[in-house]
Amino acid sequence: MTNWTLAARTAKMNSSAIREILKLTDRPGIISMAGGLPAPASFPISAFTQACNTVMERDGAAALQYSTTEGFPALRQAIADFLPWDVNPDQILITTGSQQALDLIGKIFLDKGSRILVEKPTYLGALQAFTPMEPVAVGVNSDSEGMLIDDFAAKVGSGDDKARVAYVLPNFQNPTGRTMSEARRQALVEKAKELDIPLVEDNPYGDLWYEGEPPLPLAARNPEGVIYMGSFSKVLAPGLRVGFIVAPKSVYGKLTQAKQAADLHSPSFNQRVVAEVMKDGFLESHIPTIRAMYKVQRDVMLVALEREMEGLGVTWTRPVGGMFLWVTLPKGMDAQVLLGHAVERGMAFVPGAPFYADEAETNTLRLSYVTVSPEQIHQGIAALGAAIRALQAQ
Amino acid sequence: MTNWTLAARTAKMNSSAIREILKLTDRPGIISMAGGLPAPASFPISAFTQACNTVMERDGAAALQYSTTEGFPALRQAIADFLPWDVNPDQILITTGSQQALDLIGKIFLDKGSRILVEKPTYLGALQAFTPMEPVAVGVNSDSEGMLIDDFAAKVGSGDDKARVAYVLPNFQNPTGRTMSEARRQALVEKAKELDIPLVEDNPYGDLWYEGEPPLPLAARNPEGVIYMGSFSKVLAPGLRVGFIVAPKSVYGKLTQAKQAADLHSPSFNQRVVAEVMKDGFLESHIPTIRAMYKVQRDVMLVALEREMEGLGVTWTRPVGGMFLWVTLPKGMDAQVLLGHAVERGMAFVPGAPFYADEAETNTLRLSYVTVSPEQIHQGIAALGAAIRALQAQ
Repeated sequence: MTNWTLAARTAKMNSSAIREILKLTDRPGIISMAGGLPAPASFPISAFTQACNTVMERDGAAALQYSTTEGFPALRQAIADFLPWDVNPDQILITTGSQQALDLIGKIFLDKGSRILVEKPTYLGALQAFTPMEPVAVGVNSDSEGMLIDDFAAKVGSGDDKARVAYVLPNFQNPTGRTMSEARRQALVEKAKELDIPLVEDNPYGDLWYEGEPPLPLAARNPEGVIYMGSFSKVLAPGLRVGFIVAPKSVYGKLTQAKQAADLHSPSFNQRVVAEVMKDGFLESHIPTIRAMYKVQRDVMLVALEREMEGLGVTWTRPVGGMFLWVTLPKGMDAQVLLGHAVERGMAFVPGAPFYADEAETNTLRLSYVTVSPEQIHQGIAALGAAIRALQAQ
Repeated sequence: MTNWTLAARTAKMNSSAIREILKLTDRPGIISMAGGLPAPASFPISAFTQACNTVMERDGAAALQYSTTEGFPALRQAIADFLPWDVNPDQILITTGSQQALDLIGKIFLDKGSRILVEKPTYLGALQAFTPMEPVAVGVNSDSEGMLIDDFAAKVGSGDDKARVAYVLPNFQNPTGRTMSEARRQALVEKAKELDIPLVEDNPYGDLWYEGEPPLPLAARNPEGVIYMGSFSKVLAPGLRVGFIVAPKSVYGKLTQAKQAADLHSPSFNQRVVAEVMKDGFLESHIPTIRAMYKVQRDVMLVALEREMEGLGVTWTRPVGGMFLWVTLPKGMDAQVLLGHAVERGMAFVPGAPFYADEAETNTLRLSYVTVSPEQIHQGIAALGAAIRALQAQ
């Protein structure tokens, strides 16, 4: 038996709570609204196959060789062209999915004990990505539009305890589905500038709007004050692990060094295939098909909730894009307990507690509507209603 | 202007010294023996193209979807079958190149100030990967077979300062090309076991032997005491970024959690393509072609060195595999100064100093022989000889 000493951070590291829940709920016969996967029906398989062949024929050796840490120039250019504000390709760093962007941002900003501000609730994977740097994540009170500016300002702190970054997900947030309004964006950007705290803007879902384009990103309002994260996981395919950072000049170099140390560069082949797929405006025609698909799913879920939750004292968000919807149960009802009753009745969701950095609201849960059929949505939400009634009757 | 506070570790992070040198030396007309790239002629482009098409046709949706952090089961099984000792696929964690393995190992073993033992000299990218965890890297005196056991034991330390891991590259080491003998391997494994210190065995070049298979890996001798790192970068292609760790059960879980936080999982598509390429024994027929190609190159370089270095007081290693050869200049000659003279004469190499964690031997340099033609090798080594003579004449 070995008696090795591990780094102190390992005591804080855990497997994702969601992945643990999925192990319990991914059983045959369970209608799962617990996952966070995009619908495979949205993957452009034939466009990818064609792009793979083109890349291998034209640039096979380069696609299989080592490449620069910053990323494939044509892809960086294509991303700059695609973004809705004026971006220099030199500010773009290609990452191995946007999860890696979180790892790199954590590495360059967070010392042990550093304060970091997050929304209440926030993306669980971000908490997980920052954990190895041993920060103290502080939840900022949030309403249906995201962080409340007063609480943000109050929690930034000062001196050695001043927050290093604030992490926000302005569009169709995971887990709540909520979107920051124009006014809130502007107010947050101005307050962050005034307090000189970097904003980390995570935007994996921004293109998946159903009812008109969301307001401009935070980064567009103050490019030197915001580290912007984007991803191809929700508009093309997550299995390629291609994401990116748009970074202010002041931190681009350190992010690139952190990336070089972490994996040298993201796969050359994947970067070239994505650049090839993006050619000739493919995304402009492809993304609307995903929007249309997900909008139908959302509509079905809203209808099912209206019908099945009547009189139960349950509320939920009405997302105008993205993949998720957030349910608030009556006060005192624990979503973790409810999950057992729901699984018994054939459906699964993710309890809300793991999405909170602190002060978890345990009467919340997340539903994904994109990988279940309309029939399954009706059936699953009916099962959820029955589970709530059963718990209330106890 | 922002006045953000970055993490303390960023002061220690730097861009790879090699990449900086390559910017100076990758000019038209320069014969570069400085790079660390495998020969593109060794990439099996048609096998890859075919595998891409098979994977997309058969499993397109799964290849483009999120997948498990541990890796694609069929690839983990194929790796277990390929390795020369009894490995359970459950011990294998797929990484985004073996550079990521170093990042994960650093995260789970190293606190700020932790001691880590490395060879003298060692792989520069490993020093770079560990740096963000702010360890103290200590070089262990090494001879033509790797770490000297007495110095290893002397430098392990004790109590809070006991080294957390020892990092070694037993086969055709980058940068020296040297190989650990059977006896040295056995002695190191036994000493590490006795002192209860984990060995990290990095083996990207092990299959590229020219004169018979190297001795069994350290991991084969004490599977619960060694974290083994492998890679497809040198036997298939680096642009896919597929590497792996074979980990003892005691640390597999923490490595997987660190991986999940770092990039969720390595690209599903790439893993499936590599598994597809590996089917039906492709590597068994492909790798010998790389060995044959590199052996010719090494032979040419040895002949050229014999001829051009005569009487200059220069010595060099005679690697029996891999991609690199290590040159020791006369005492007092600085390879960094020599580089200027060499580039003036049309050739480039990497000075040895950056490969040392401490106590750099500045009269050393690394030559790569795999991406230059025989003619270029003769011409480049002649230019190196001329540069040395010029410097000696000053």
